Amino acid sequence: MTTLNSIEGGRFYGIGTGPGDPELITLKAARLIASADVVAYFCKRGKRGNARDIADAHIHGGQREEPMVYPVTTELPHTSQAYRDRIEAFFDASADMLAGHLAAGRSVVVLNEGDPFFYGSFMHVYLRLKDRFPSTIIPGVPSIMSSAALLPTPLTMRDDVLSVVPGTLPDDALHERLSSVDAAVIMKVGSNLDRIVAVLERLGMCQRAWYVERSSMAAEYCCRLPEASVDRAPYFSMIVVPGTGERR
Amino acid sequence: MTTLNSIEGGRFYGIGTGPGDPELITLKAARLIASADVVAYFCKRGKRGNARDIADAHIHGGQREEPMVYPVTTELPHTSQAYRDRIEAFFDASADMLAGHLAAGRSVVVLNEGDPFFYGSFMHVYLRLKDRFPSTIIPGVPSIMSSAALLPTPLTMRDDVLSVVPGTLPDDALHERLSSVDAAVIMKVGSNLDRIVAVLERLGMCQRAWYVERSSMAAEYCCRLPEASVDRAPYFSMIVVPGTGERR
Repeated sequence: MTTLNSIEGGRFYGIGTGPGDPELITLKAARLIASADVVAYFCKRGKRGNARDIADAHIHGGQREEPMVYPVTTELPHTSQAYRDRIEAFFDASADMLAGHLAAGRSVVVLNEGDPFFYGSFMHVYLRLKDRFPSTIIPGVPSIMSSAALLPTPLTMRDDVLSVVPGTLPDDALHERLSSVDAAVIMKVGSNLDRIVAVLERLGMCQRAWYVERSSMAAEYCCRLPEASVDRAPYFSMIVVPGTGERR
Repeated sequence: MTTLNSIEGGRFYGIGTGPGDPELITLKAARLIASADVVAYFCKRGKRGNARDIADAHIHGGQREEPMVYPVTTELPHTSQAYRDRIEAFFDASADMLAGHLAAGRSVVVLNEGDPFFYGSFMHVYLRLKDRFPSTIIPGVPSIMSSAALLPTPLTMRDDVLSVVPGTLPDDALHERLSSVDAAVIMKVGSNLDRIVAVLERLGMCQRAWYVERSSMAAEYCCRLPEASVDRAPYFSMIVVPGTGERR
């Protein structure tokens, strides 16, 4: 058994809170959140955010909370220079705020839905702070695992290759990236659903694909892909194509 | 917050125990293990196995333990018909044993290192029982996340595509599957290390690759791939190539 390390002042922790169900947080994440001097998390204006909701039972009055509120979400196109400038300045300011706590010797946990090193928002402050302060990453259950848990067959078996592909890629890139996979997860589906379905149809993968949204949360929803409707697809919905487990 | 469901007699649970550190088990897995009538797990002869070790703190005297002991491990080549016959008969017998408990109305948890639907041994009994008894999958932290947690940069950022590839694939398949990836994890490295390194060298990926073994366990070890030695690589070692986070 590994040693139970206590939390360390002046160190920051990237904490995976898991996919949504507060019970899918790890014992380690729960302990470190409860022990930290400062609990930081990204959120949208007027909302506490999923990661903070998941961690709620482990946060208490004696701690300092630092919500890092996104200055823009959908007001500017994400590919525009104006959006990138605003968001980079926001990450700079967030990292400076955390650096202040760390320089004062406080322990800081940064909450991150799912896993912090797997498409996590944590990375934006991590990359700005990692060479100045010691850090520890606490892995979490990623949403691809809680989504696959809803299907009637395993995600990967035996020699299956799994590809995880952002649904925001252009059609030709999507087609290329999905053309030689056994199992696949397409993330960030949302308004790209129709486009992605068209690519999967051309590849003959639609019939074995599943649509999943909000896995492990109260409003979780899962159906076969041909039954999914683009009207409802939120940004964090995903498509899961389980592998066949063929032996090679 | 989702409802806290109590454990159900006659239902079987595929439990992800996480990658090795007993603190990386989820609250849900810990609760269900502690509540179950029967705790089952795969192991080798004379060993209790990692999943059972990880879950130790949550198992108590009032429960029935069912170790499912592999009849062969390395005595026969895994590609031989003799091995496959022995192992399929063993999975049949294991599923029959579990079915006996389920038919008697007992709740059964089957422990699985990492995540049960991600290359898990659980799938072999799951596929035999899923149409006869109700089941629930409890996702866990996979070893790819605990391995990536040891690196100085995130596994995937922005539009990175991640490919998870079994290192047991032949050279040409490995080359093809790794030729258009951003981030990659190569599982089941072990004695295939030299072969895999040669493929990664041809693809120009060696310098940004890391070798990781036993992540999150007391004996965890991580180094840049060019410094790794094949003499020590255990079967469950892996190679991690973090993405570059390029915007597309």
